[in-house]
Amino acid sequence: MKYNPITKDILEELVEILGAKNVIVDEEKMENYSHDETSEEYAHMPEVVITPKSADQISKVMKLANKHLVPVTPRGAGSGLSGGAIPVFGGILLSIEKMNRVLEVDYDNMMIVVEPGLVTNEINGIVDEKGLFYAGYPMSLLTCYIGGNIAENAGGGKAIKYGVTGRYVMGLEVVTPTGEIVEMGGKNIKDVTGYDLKRLMIGSEGTLGVITKAIIKLSPKPKFATDLLVLFNDAESAIRMVPKIISEGRIVPTSIEFMDKLSVHTTCDYLNEHLPYQKAGSMLLIEVDGTVEENVNLDAETIGELCLENNAIEVYVADNYTTQERVWSVRRNIAEAFMVYSPEQSLEDIVVPIANIAKLMPEIEKISKKYDIKMPSYGHAGDGNLHTTLVKNPNTTIEEWHEIEEKALQELYNIVYELGGKLSGEHGIGLKRKKYMKDYVSEAEIMLMKKIKKAFDPNNIMNPGKIID
Amino acid sequence: MKYNPITKDILEELVEILGAKNVIVDEEKMENYSHDETSEEYAHMPEVVITPKSADQISKVMKLANKHLVPVTPRGAGSGLSGGAIPVFGGILLSIEKMNRVLEVDYDNMMIVVEPGLVTNEINGIVDEKGLFYAGYPMSLLTCYIGGNIAENAGGGKAIKYGVTGRYVMGLEVVTPTGEIVEMGGKNIKDVTGYDLKRLMIGSEGTLGVITKAIIKLSPKPKFATDLLVLFNDAESAIRMVPKIISEGRIVPTSIEFMDKLSVHTTCDYLNEHLPYQKAGSMLLIEVDGTVEENVNLDAETIGELCLENNAIEVYVADNYTTQERVWSVRRNIAEAFMVYSPEQSLEDIVVPIANIAKLMPEIEKISKKYDIKMPSYGHAGDGNLHTTLVKNPNTTIEEWHEIEEKALQELYNIVYELGGKLSGEHGIGLKRKKYMKDYVSEAEIMLMKKIKKAFDPNNIMNPGKIID
Repeated sequence: MKYNPITKDILEELVEILGAKNVIVDEEKMENYSHDETSEEYAHMPEVVITPKSADQISKVMKLANKHLVPVTPRGAGSGLSGGAIPVFGGILLSIEKMNRVLEVDYDNMMIVVEPGLVTNEINGIVDEKGLFYAGYPMSLLTCYIGGNIAENAGGGKAIKYGVTGRYVMGLEVVTPTGEIVEMGGKNIKDVTGYDLKRLMIGSEGTLGVITKAIIKLSPKPKFATDLLVLFNDAESAIRMVPKIISEGRIVPTSIEFMDKLSVHTTCDYLNEHLPYQKAGSMLLIEVDGTVEENVNLDAETIGELCLENNAIEVYVADNYTTQERVWSVRRNIAEAFMVYSPEQSLEDIVVPIANIAKLMPEIEKISKKYDIKMPSYGHAGDGNLHTTLVKNPNTTIEEWHEIEEKALQELYNIVYELGGKLSGEHGIGLKRKKYMKDYVSEAEIMLMKKIKKAFDPNNIMNPGKIID
Repeated sequence: MKYNPITKDILEELVEILGAKNVIVDEEKMENYSHDETSEEYAHMPEVVITPKSADQISKVMKLANKHLVPVTPRGAGSGLSGGAIPVFGGILLSIEKMNRVLEVDYDNMMIVVEPGLVTNEINGIVDEKGLFYAGYPMSLLTCYIGGNIAENAGGGKAIKYGVTGRYVMGLEVVTPTGEIVEMGGKNIKDVTGYDLKRLMIGSEGTLGVITKAIIKLSPKPKFATDLLVLFNDAESAIRMVPKIISEGRIVPTSIEFMDKLSVHTTCDYLNEHLPYQKAGSMLLIEVDGTVEENVNLDAETIGELCLENNAIEVYVADNYTTQERVWSVRRNIAEAFMVYSPEQSLEDIVVPIANIAKLMPEIEKISKKYDIKMPSYGHAGDGNLHTTLVKNPNTTIEEWHEIEEKALQELYNIVYELGGKLSGEHGIGLKRKKYMKDYVSEAEIMLMKKIKKAFDPNNIMNPGKIID
């Protein structure tokens, strides 16, 4: 695919559509838009950054881009972890940062209508007074945008009970790659009026259109929560608890987070935190929530007992905010803690059927030994979704590391697929994992994806170079 | 679109692929496959009925059908309510009735792998012993097939708490219109590895492929349930309770079913049932369920009190199986009861934002008076999804009725769309509602649907004549 450069004429047309202050060509200002939270090696400069304020403006931009064959890359908060918002072919970087209004709070339907550039957690700030909350829970909810969450179908730490972003998106307004403004879905709880275009948009990583408005479902906010920190001798015993809690305990917890020995030790050292971790070969962090305090306590008790009957060494209860924060802070600081060891990392997002995490763990250890790298594993055990991270050994050179990273990743993915897993549970394919698609996703499936892409975006100008080629 | 007839040669090829006993051309035997549960006026005979037993056979059939340009219409149990399985262009009727095996019960992952021809409720029969259940709940679950549920994204009476079919479909095996066998999704709770093809298949009414296998998620079965029968003076008071229960009560009930005065009276008379209905202008049937009995009782109590504070005349509690069955049997027999009055009916499936049902009710009454027909409304108030039914006045002729039906429906849909609603909440567009798509769905949206259809089915042979032309 050959794209045309952004000419002076195109810039003038952009200024006409958007106004001069929404068209940025200053190199220094554009630098921030050249990368997301993935490694710097994926960075690429745009030719121009635009900050539109309406679907109408975006529609005009898309028509212009089609006419001149220039690529358009939509971008949220830049908190992505797969390079999805990186303008690999230059062209126009379309930042939704100025489209951050709350358009309607509809308590009668328990929905909120927002623009895509709203910081996700702001929804909670608004609806909290009515005892409601947004049940999507990406770990970066204090900084990420709801539009980015939808484009990536973001997951997070509460998906086992509440599901991921897509469950709460009732309606979308989308500008298609050819510039049409399309409403999909609405405020209806059920809707089977034709193909589910909205669901196709969710998780399509900005390759099928720009989300310009979203109708989000709210849920009654649970009044009480309790966390259990459960210590096990080994990873397998911890992992085996996940289906037991749900089927034997008949409880769907809010979270079941897993941390292996390496993650816990390194992070506790980093935080100077003295959790009772010395004995632990692995840990589960289990949260239950609900509206009735006794019921939440009963659930926590049932789970604690079940764990103790099944090889847990110890169960600690965190039923107040301070202790809960201490425990969760360990979970949240794992990536940070390993940065001290080496900033050269590859944060993965593998997912396997929950029952297979136990089989995955020893294989990860083998790879780690073979290549002499650290590979902490932690994350959403309740969803089979682990953020196994490859961390460079400080004794190797950057060149050696890149070679090791590639080989180790391939071996990791091989095992994940043998176990029925997938490349990405919540971060997306984007730029970073695109090259692995052909090895792990069937040709027939890729062919259907390509046909859909072509149907929506005949000139391949919308976020090109992502997911598939 | 011109299709070719089924020739002797094609029949021979079908026999070669499927074996003689899986290729039916007997007119009498084929009659049963010419209609579903919609009115007889939509019926159409197939040229041949086939009963394949594997994805492989279906793949060969699709390749054959493409070569000869003959239409293929997939069919589940024939319990559809929109004519989706009717072979309007003749050709091959592909019945999945012989693909009804349970392929795997995976308790460790709490999933079951089934063929599409399995009767939905059989899943519950199998997994009940482990305290699990399938949380999809179409009202016809004792007779419908899981494959049909997926193709229609079937809803039902428990969607307010548990969501609809799509939430529980983890993976699909699909034979595409061009004969490729494609696996979509898998046993992973989270998965953002490329476009969500599985979600696009769900609810596509058999127009994008034949489902040949499904991985279904199981849930812990609630141990206790209580039903409340709540009487109101008018429909508006009843409807206004729905958001109140969820936001003020912070309870998401299992069901909130609504029955208007006409539905309750006619059905109670039909069943010779003496529910305390005389005073009621409308009724809500509210179910709550859970694992802890006291909690279920507390929820029921909270809801009951909230209703009494908000204009309910009376609240009856049905906390045992016999009383629950009595109450639900009224709800289930409404359609049947009106059959006595007239078998000429149009069962609709409109959906509006829940807060707008109250505005919809008086409009329905106006249409009913204007055309002198009965229009009982009942259904899933918790989802804004009402089965408003147009019932012919026995004093009019069939010709007059068809004219009235068309006009009244158009007026009904006009109001539904003015209120932000949609043509179908759970029954699908199929054949019956296709003609209304162009009036109510935007051109841009229809264009995207057409492009997707074309991408999957270039020769338009897979269930043609449904959803869009």
